[in-house]
Amino acid sequence: MLGEDSPVLTVLHSVDQPPDLERIEKYATIRYTDETGLTQALPGADALFVYDFLSTALPGAWHAADRLSWVHIASAGVDPVLFPGLRDSDVTLTNSRGVFDDAIAEYVLGVILAFAKDFARSLRLQEAARWQHRETERVAGQHVMVMGTGPIGRAIARMLRAVGMRVSGVGRTRRENDPDFGVVHPSTELVEHLPEADYVVAVAPLTEQTKGAFDARAFAAMKPTARFVNVGRGELVITKDLIAALRSQQIAGAALDVFDVEPLPSDSPLWMMQNVLVSAHMSGDVIGWRNILVERFIENFERWRTRQPLHNVVDKQLGYVPSPAV
Amino acid sequence: MLGEDSPVLTVLHSVDQPPDLERIEKYATIRYTDETGLTQALPGADALFVYDFLSTALPGAWHAADRLSWVHIASAGVDPVLFPGLRDSDVTLTNSRGVFDDAIAEYVLGVILAFAKDFARSLRLQEAARWQHRETERVAGQHVMVMGTGPIGRAIARMLRAVGMRVSGVGRTRRENDPDFGVVHPSTELVEHLPEADYVVAVAPLTEQTKGAFDARAFAAMKPTARFVNVGRGELVITKDLIAALRSQQIAGAALDVFDVEPLPSDSPLWMMQNVLVSAHMSGDVIGWRNILVERFIENFERWRTRQPLHNVVDKQLGYVPSPAV
Repeated sequence: MLGEDSPVLTVLHSVDQPPDLERIEKYATIRYTDETGLTQALPGADALFVYDFLSTALPGAWHAADRLSWVHIASAGVDPVLFPGLRDSDVTLTNSRGVFDDAIAEYVLGVILAFAKDFARSLRLQEAARWQHRETERVAGQHVMVMGTGPIGRAIARMLRAVGMRVSGVGRTRRENDPDFGVVHPSTELVEHLPEADYVVAVAPLTEQTKGAFDARAFAAMKPTARFVNVGRGELVITKDLIAALRSQQIAGAALDVFDVEPLPSDSPLWMMQNVLVSAHMSGDVIGWRNILVERFIENFERWRTRQPLHNVVDKQLGYVPSPAV
Repeated sequence: MLGEDSPVLTVLHSVDQPPDLERIEKYATIRYTDETGLTQALPGADALFVYDFLSTALPGAWHAADRLSWVHIASAGVDPVLFPGLRDSDVTLTNSRGVFDDAIAEYVLGVILAFAKDFARSLRLQEAARWQHRETERVAGQHVMVMGTGPIGRAIARMLRAVGMRVSGVGRTRRENDPDFGVVHPSTELVEHLPEADYVVAVAPLTEQTKGAFDARAFAAMKPTARFVNVGRGELVITKDLIAALRSQQIAGAALDVFDVEPLPSDSPLWMMQNVLVSAHMSGDVIGWRNILVERFIENFERWRTRQPLHNVVDKQLGYVPSPAV
């Protein structure tokens, strides 16, 4: 039985409600809602769990949030909830940093090996029952430039180094001797360093500084043999410039898990390009991920309820959880 | 100008002659031949370089080899040249052990990640311009059993461990605390241990002991979620048993680079199975591999010419180059 002062938790979900929240029912009144009911579900709510992390409904409903003190989002990227109303408020924002790191690293290594070993062509030949020997590429010794030096970028760097690739990073500030990247170039020098890379991985948070960083100028700077991998956000890329670079063979290929419009529209030329691997924003979503996301939320809920400092507090001006200095 | 006693080297090639052999022209009379001319090219030859390592012509031409002392094959597997005539002769046989190790390891990691991340389905969905989110698998923590503890199997084991997989080996003799595998089970206990594996990799040399090791009984012992990877020889597998196991979902999938008949016949059901990845005997064949193969031959030729002990001498009774004891 909840006391009169038990907090109200609003949970924004899409089709399915999150699992496992019955574990905290005795500590909060839980209001489940989808996007259509959000405005009704916010008044009186003390906390909001954005389980539908792709929803863009919060800005439009924000006026109804009259006593919110905490918003938690079930994703690593917080750009969908970093609108001015929330950013400039006193509401604390936390994210799910850490849940996706190693899964995304495996995915990135997988697409790099798929390019090097020409798997897409093997599958097309297989559909035609055609035996065609080809010479393929080693990944060892190839240079991967990772834009984004948060925990996901670091997990990627460690995994690629483990299989013998050379890695460098692109981040907010220049660093030498970084334990995961070796060298980190400042993002202001991205284009200058792109010619060094055989693979370019975009995994930076979407901020005003990173938005559209991969534009015609960036693709023109890459090697014609380079492949571009995006597991960050679609808006890091000027999509029409990427399509033009792929069409003109300015770069050799792209593996894209995220897009500026999702789902990727069925008339996008990216679907049909043979040098492109498209997946449906799923690089970190391994079996059990929903339970892990809820587990991380519940850990933070326990801290919030008992007035301990929260984990993974987003710096709303930076747009991500700052890493401890390395 | 060659002296009267300069040796005769016969080179068996298919369409293309090997590169770079002009480097040894001053030390030997080189006779280039394809399969059709082999019987004419053997009389008087002191050495034979089997550059066409898939050729099965040597047994039929063996009667014409009247002074051969050395045969070198441009592959790791020596089964195509281990017929009784050569095996029981005094002719020394050497192979190209070591050339393919790390390339094949990358290939094996690539197909394991392709299974875990469901890339084949992503590509099929892409062809249909269909956006479909799925949950995929981690590879970390999954158990890979590698049958074959020679240099290629060891390179595979090291690479899979580097990305967090658990590895065990199956070899001729039982070993504990192997530096690459941890535990090595004797191949007599293969079927008993197969239920432990999430992935099973076949990379053993083809010998009387390993031929047909993967039969109905072996596939029945595997987990229904297990995937089978063959980068060794097609004849390690009873193909009809593998097809039956895949059809009945006794195992979850297979990545096959080698087949008992190559090229894989166009009417093989393997081509059309959605849980199978077919490639054209190319897992180790990276750009530049032909030059590397010839380089290794020339190194051994120099040793042969100057009467030094040869590298990679095959134990013709075992059917492979014995590893130093670990």
